Amino acid sequence: MNRLTIIKVGGKIVEEEQSLQQLLKDFSQIEGYKILVHGGGRSATKLAERLGIESRMVNGRRITDPQMLEVVTMVYGGLVNKNIVAKLQSLGINALGLTGADMNMMLSDKRPVKDIDYGYVGDVKKVNIDILSSLIQQGIIPVLAPLTHDGLGNMLNTNADTIAGETAKALAQVFDVSLIYCFEKKGVLMNENDDDSVIPQINKPEFERLSGLGVIQGGMIPKLDNAFNSIDAGVKEVIITSAAELGKNTGTRIDGK
Amino acid sequence: MNRLTIIKVGGKIVEEEQSLQQLLKDFSQIEGYKILVHGGGRSATKLAERLGIESRMVNGRRITDPQMLEVVTMVYGGLVNKNIVAKLQSLGINALGLTGADMNMMLSDKRPVKDIDYGYVGDVKKVNIDILSSLIQQGIIPVLAPLTHDGLGNMLNTNADTIAGETAKALAQVFDVSLIYCFEKKGVLMNENDDDSVIPQINKPEFERLSGLGVIQGGMIPKLDNAFNSIDAGVKEVIITSAAELGKNTGTRIDGK
Repeated sequence: MNRLTIIKVGGKIVEEEQSLQQLLKDFSQIEGYKILVHGGGRSATKLAERLGIESRMVNGRRITDPQMLEVVTMVYGGLVNKNIVAKLQSLGINALGLTGADMNMMLSDKRPVKDIDYGYVGDVKKVNIDILSSLIQQGIIPVLAPLTHDGLGNMLNTNADTIAGETAKALAQVFDVSLIYCFEKKGVLMNENDDDSVIPQINKPEFERLSGLGVIQGGMIPKLDNAFNSIDAGVKEVIITSAAELGKNTGTRIDGK
Repeated sequence: MNRLTIIKVGGKIVEEEQSLQQLLKDFSQIEGYKILVHGGGRSATKLAERLGIESRMVNGRRITDPQMLEVVTMVYGGLVNKNIVAKLQSLGINALGLTGADMNMMLSDKRPVKDIDYGYVGDVKKVNIDILSSLIQQGIIPVLAPLTHDGLGNMLNTNADTIAGETAKALAQVFDVSLIYCFEKKGVLMNENDDDSVIPQINKPEFERLSGLGVIQGGMIPKLDNAFNSIDAGVKEVIITSAAELGKNTGTRIDGK
């Protein structure tokens, strides 16, 4: 099988001109087939604020009422996505910006209301493997926004880590997939106050032990859950690293054994 | 050659839930290959207003400074485009939302400053015929936002009538193209106060005579210039009609002779 690299970037990196430019330059130099998945939460919060719309988060997830759905559709699908696409084109990368609605690329169910009504938030149900792999094999580089749709005419807000994980798992049927989560830190840290205390490799028992001890906590837990999930589903390689170290073979490698 | 229908819709039609739904239903029933081109100026003006950004128009064209470029990228590329795509998917149409940056679909030059600095406004230089015709032949329905790019990393604001005209002219090399401009009126009117005074067919000398007399004026003049331009460049059929009459073979037909 051919190799496919899926890079997920979020946080400040995609929303500040200089770090974005560097990231896209590094991304453009990755050899072979590739996909970029981006976030944009800070920009969404900022726009919502300017519009007088309150951002409500529960467990790190954004409550997406109809007004907030408009904001994230504008920011993720328009502003952030098209900016990245235009910049990649200028670097000679034939990028195509996509949401899950485009070519029915990713279909979701609106999250059922239990304790919390997340609103227009989508849990991924189906990734269109044929269309994505056909695009990739034509030399097109998909740039995926954290938006899906419900097939009933509604866009849905979907976490970018999830988009990356679901895409990786689906395409593992067709490619040898490397999934790389880029964020501000250099990897999973042994000591959150020491940026150099990166755990080079982690397996599930070790993850459970360290999260039990409270060494691994907060937003890192769903990220690692996603990562182990992907490895279990046949993704060849999952790495958590910093955007600045992209392509340097550093960070934390997920060990499926 | 196969037939391709290009529908351009703008104005209130795409920005009001009910009329949009009807339009998309009518669009979904058009047989054969098709493309939808949309505007969204009212929504852009509304969002700009909420953000305290002034909309400045010269000769019906929007001055696009960096702040306004963000607004139109969000509204045209995100909000309006993705809403249409999600709704078309729910009608069984395999829509793909595109700006000119996506797959380098439409490349523009930033308009040179003469008397007026229009800012980030693009004049179309090149349409990627291969990629568009290949998508269409795969059964994908492109939904084009009125945005292009300069190949240097910048998005550019481009009039939706122009996007439709340039797309029609380029694809006339590969398809028998019908270009249909939908707007609020039933066609080009002989008397602007009488909605039923539609001119059924018009050629260039007649257009020049009527615009000389002031019967045809305002925004209809660039629309008709665009229309004659397309016919001269090999587009098989150009019709100006109302969205409500889509598919009814009414409106004003452009006569190339």
